Amino acid sequence: MATQALADWTVSLSYPDLPEEVTHAAVRSFYNIAGCIVGGSQHPASTIARNALSPFSGPPTSHLLGTNASTDAMHAALFNGIASHVHDYDDTHLDTIIHPTGPVACALLAIIPTLSHPVSGTEFITALVAGIEAECKIGLAVWPAHYDVGWHITSTTGSIGAAVAVAKLLSLSAEKVAHAIGLAATQVTGLREMFGSHAKSFHPGRAAQNGLLAALLAREGFTSSVEALEAKRGLEEEIGGLGDAGRWEIVRNAFKPFPCGIVVHPVIDGCVWLHGELERVGVDVADIEEVIADVHPLVLELTGKATPKDGLEAKFSVYHGGAVGLLLGKAAPAQYEDDVVLDGRVVALRARFRAVPDENLRADECHLVVKVRGGASIEKHVDYAMGSLECPMTNEQLTAKFVDQCVGILGEERTDRASRWCWDLEEQADVGRINDVL
Amino acid sequence: MATQALADWTVSLSYPDLPEEVTHAAVRSFYNIAGCIVGGSQHPASTIARNALSPFSGPPTSHLLGTNASTDAMHAALFNGIASHVHDYDDTHLDTIIHPTGPVACALLAIIPTLSHPVSGTEFITALVAGIEAECKIGLAVWPAHYDVGWHITSTTGSIGAAVAVAKLLSLSAEKVAHAIGLAATQVTGLREMFGSHAKSFHPGRAAQNGLLAALLAREGFTSSVEALEAKRGLEEEIGGLGDAGRWEIVRNAFKPFPCGIVVHPVIDGCVWLHGELERVGVDVADIEEVIADVHPLVLELTGKATPKDGLEAKFSVYHGGAVGLLLGKAAPAQYEDDVVLDGRVVALRARFRAVPDENLRADECHLVVKVRGGASIEKHVDYAMGSLECPMTNEQLTAKFVDQCVGILGEERTDRASRWCWDLEEQADVGRINDVL
Repeated sequence: MATQALADWTVSLSYPDLPEEVTHAAVRSFYNIAGCIVGGSQHPASTIARNALSPFSGPPTSHLLGTNASTDAMHAALFNGIASHVHDYDDTHLDTIIHPTGPVACALLAIIPTLSHPVSGTEFITALVAGIEAECKIGLAVWPAHYDVGWHITSTTGSIGAAVAVAKLLSLSAEKVAHAIGLAATQVTGLREMFGSHAKSFHPGRAAQNGLLAALLAREGFTSSVEALEAKRGLEEEIGGLGDAGRWEIVRNAFKPFPCGIVVHPVIDGCVWLHGELERVGVDVADIEEVIADVHPLVLELTGKATPKDGLEAKFSVYHGGAVGLLLGKAAPAQYEDDVVLDGRVVALRARFRAVPDENLRADECHLVVKVRGGASIEKHVDYAMGSLECPMTNEQLTAKFVDQCVGILGEERTDRASRWCWDLEEQADVGRINDVL
Repeated sequence: MATQALADWTVSLSYPDLPEEVTHAAVRSFYNIAGCIVGGSQHPASTIARNALSPFSGPPTSHLLGTNASTDAMHAALFNGIASHVHDYDDTHLDTIIHPTGPVACALLAIIPTLSHPVSGTEFITALVAGIEAECKIGLAVWPAHYDVGWHITSTTGSIGAAVAVAKLLSLSAEKVAHAIGLAATQVTGLREMFGSHAKSFHPGRAAQNGLLAALLAREGFTSSVEALEAKRGLEEEIGGLGDAGRWEIVRNAFKPFPCGIVVHPVIDGCVWLHGELERVGVDVADIEEVIADVHPLVLELTGKATPKDGLEAKFSVYHGGAVGLLLGKAAPAQYEDDVVLDGRVVALRARFRAVPDENLRADECHLVVKVRGGASIEKHVDYAMGSLECPMTNEQLTAKFVDQCVGILGEERTDRASRWCWDLEEQADVGRINDVL
């Protein structure tokens, strides 16, 4: 019943059903992922994948954001999906730590230019919401056991979310949506063991492609079990709360101010503040003897890499995030480049950084003490990290993040135009025109 | 260590290392799968997939066996892989019930025509053996728990086998083979929940594609964890026995005389014999009151569908296999067509067919009693079903199976030529020329 319930809900969803907070969250989710795709488009994971697979690509219908290249829809979903996640800078549904928008948006953006009719912003948003709700509801049903045994929950649920979104966009019947769900569910991509390698970003890319493939096969009559979800995952009850019958998950989607594991964010947030404070009181970072960060225990479990060897590993190092925050006053993708990770000053400060698990702290909270040569110390308590649900990034902050990711690739003028286009998603008559601006 | 051990073994494997029984088994495995791909090429699962995905296909380098069509290597791996399994007529590594050859052979056949040099039969066999050994060794390490919790072990291990085989063919370094293994391992395709739908055959097709993709990404420098196997599956010890350090799994690969779940084979084998016996003694099938089959308990667990609604479901019906064996004296793909499954005489005989689990019987054994109106009865005890390791299909039987699958599609002359070409695999100077014959 869960599969059919999700299929029926998908078919019945329409734009007027969506509360304003939902469409608002959808636009912010889209805006954020568009910048992330551009920002990740030049990363080696992206360029290697494009080089490896270009000999097998079909008609270049679908644009790769942030590049001059297009490729077939199936590869575009993969490549844009890899780019969307490679900096670990995408959105996070905090209740499940799913990064929901990448697989769904990349599948939709890939297939839209192949359709015989334009897709409006409101149609796009409706499909996007369908896919994101599907991912997050399924995620809630299987969290945390599913993640704990080693699955990258973003891509395992992402395949299904992408299938639901594309099925919605293609107006498939409820029966075919159910087959699409099954065909996506059986492609269970993503082991957490891959974290710290290119394969992590491959996961949401492949999820976008898995879901797109599933919907396209189902459209032509390819069949699957129509009980994929209940058979393997026990979603019966949770699915009952889909959409307006329960809460909307997309409004609980958060955005990262820093391109790394979200549990590190309170530390970075506090360290960026401390960077300013140290400057204000005239303390040189070289005079720091020790930094002690009291953190939620999950921080060390997930991001305890003390000596990251490159940018990808640094994303799983609370020490690196704290060090660049303190030393440089920011932690954008540039601060996760390999040369920064291996910079002598950063390495030295990381070595003086100590993280202490404290079960009394929430995951979005931390307490920092900087001990300075001579005996002085400066403290900072972060109640809610920037980017948490209690302290969400503002549209202005999202814009600054977008610009930071795009300007070096697109230039100022195009970045500015793209930013406005993406904020105006709801008014777009043809979302396929994104190819002209990003 | 397991991943690196498999990678090192793959790199070091060479044709002269292969005992004759191994190359012999490889040729038989290849011969059997070639016929199965042709035989499955016209099935709706195959044609629907081709129709759905042709708009996204790249340069048509790679042939779809049994058709006039070619497509890019990535799609060819998928389509040939679907065809290879759709009749459930492919090979079986009985210790793990993996169908090992499809994913591996389909990935290899797809990529060969894109290479700048011809691939000889011996190079092909070496890569094929590498892939099949990888699948089966990994399968042995995770069997039966992995299957019991719901994974289609053919495709979950098939992705890795295909990656290993392609990596071998491309002469990747051991480091890159390890990345290829990781990239394949993280694409865990195949839920048993899909059995009875098109998605079942999608699994080995996608596995072929997953593995091919993994090897091509790794070749260009895309990274994964290099501990994918030990981290998630605990293969350390089993991998120690790879290749000549232990037994060769490929020689334990068996071939199906009947296109359905292998546990049904003893019943079909016995019923085909009984069909002849009933004819000999002049009993009309309409006079059969009841058939009682004592079978291994797994037979009912896996193939207990009493009233299959179509050919795909009939593959999971011991009742259907027995009925067509008794009534028609054979159980080839034609006896699993929808119209046969719904034929009144078949339906009536299925209804009189009773299967009784008996824990004292092996899975390749059964005891049959046919009770005839008037009180007479005929019995048959099958010690080892045809196609079991103890009673393997002969080359002549494999040839008859090949011809049965190909002749309606290729015609007699081409079938005969293709059969000879495939038996002569070891002597072929350019395996890519298979495109000319099949």
